[in-house]
Amino acid sequence: MIGMENTAGKGFPENPGAEIILASQSPRRQELLGFLFPRFTVRVSEADETLPEGIAPDEAVRTLALRKARAVAPEAPGAFVIGADTVVAIDGLILGKPRDEADAAGMLRRLSGRTHQVYTGVALLGGGREECFHECTGVTFAPLTDGEIAWYLSTGEPFDKAGSYGIQGYGARFIERISGDYFTVMGLPLHGIYTRIGRFYKSFGAKLPNY
Amino acid sequence: MIGMENTAGKGFPENPGAEIILASQSPRRQELLGFLFPRFTVRVSEADETLPEGIAPDEAVRTLALRKARAVAPEAPGAFVIGADTVVAIDGLILGKPRDEADAAGMLRRLSGRTHQVYTGVALLGGGREECFHECTGVTFAPLTDGEIAWYLSTGEPFDKAGSYGIQGYGARFIERISGDYFTVMGLPLHGIYTRIGRFYKSFGAKLPNY
Repeated sequence: MIGMENTAGKGFPENPGAEIILASQSPRRQELLGFLFPRFTVRVSEADETLPEGIAPDEAVRTLALRKARAVAPEAPGAFVIGADTVVAIDGLILGKPRDEADAAGMLRRLSGRTHQVYTGVALLGGGREECFHECTGVTFAPLTDGEIAWYLSTGEPFDKAGSYGIQGYGARFIERISGDYFTVMGLPLHGIYTRIGRFYKSFGAKLPNY
Repeated sequence: MIGMENTAGKGFPENPGAEIILASQSPRRQELLGFLFPRFTVRVSEADETLPEGIAPDEAVRTLALRKARAVAPEAPGAFVIGADTVVAIDGLILGKPRDEADAAGMLRRLSGRTHQVYTGVALLGGGREECFHECTGVTFAPLTDGEIAWYLSTGEPFDKAGSYGIQGYGARFIERISGDYFTVMGLPLHGIYTRIGRFYKSFGAKLPNY
């Protein structure tokens, strides 16, 4: 047992192996975080998701990621909490979920043949500190015909998706290319989280757990 | 029944709804093709996968995709067959699966801090015609430390992977960005297949099935 420290009952940063909490219900994010950590817990608390009108997409995702993480942190003292939020934006405008078919068709026409941006913000909370960052990835849509838009609406897929499309679904066929971090599009910029968590631990003089 | 045609027993192109066959065992490719077609069949036959020494990556993936599709086609007359092959390449050199730990470490050192290419070739066979294409996507690795390489080898993940890394796995953390079609990296360029299948059907005067 030489060289081992008794960390029982100790939270982060004293115990770098302390519980890691993902403050997100998204099954996609849970799958992605599994690429970084073999073990983590999902905890979600109500966070106010209203935003001031006209807020920039990068500010929006950082703000909401932080709110989500902060909503969970008090219930899990000593844990390391990760919050995240993703938006689709074009022309500096955030595209939410469509209100109805006309709204969805309008969004798809706007995305057609152009590159839009997907922003994901991440908040890392632990040992009394907070760090936020965001990443932005360009996604290029093929030009869509009216027939393709009508067909895509008929699948029903656009209606519960921000920006009215799902990249992991029937919408995949319309995506010509992406430029940047793919995992940002999926909702969790893994390389960015990996490097920042490493620095985060280091700033406490702790080594990353063996993940 | 006005306007409906009896297509029973007719293959492609007389019956655009004819069986679609994916000539690949890869579960990833099967998942991706599901984004295009709600129904398809997987059939795999032995195809010779040896290639002439020094063949260019694009030629390699087109050649193997075509061989895989051709190996299946005779067993399924009248079907529409899709073959695919993917390689990882850097400096014009194809990286296969590592022979051993030293080989895997060498590949990871070569990929470290640089952009390499992932090529996927696709062959489309139907109605007595064949069409091949390939796409190439850039994947940028973060610089890796010796410690990171040693850790990654210890996970065991590199050993059954071409190029010694898995983008959908622990390797995800090392990927800084991609440039091009993401689905090409995953093994099936969906947008490229979608547009070409549309043209393919059209060239026979057939309309795409309602997928």
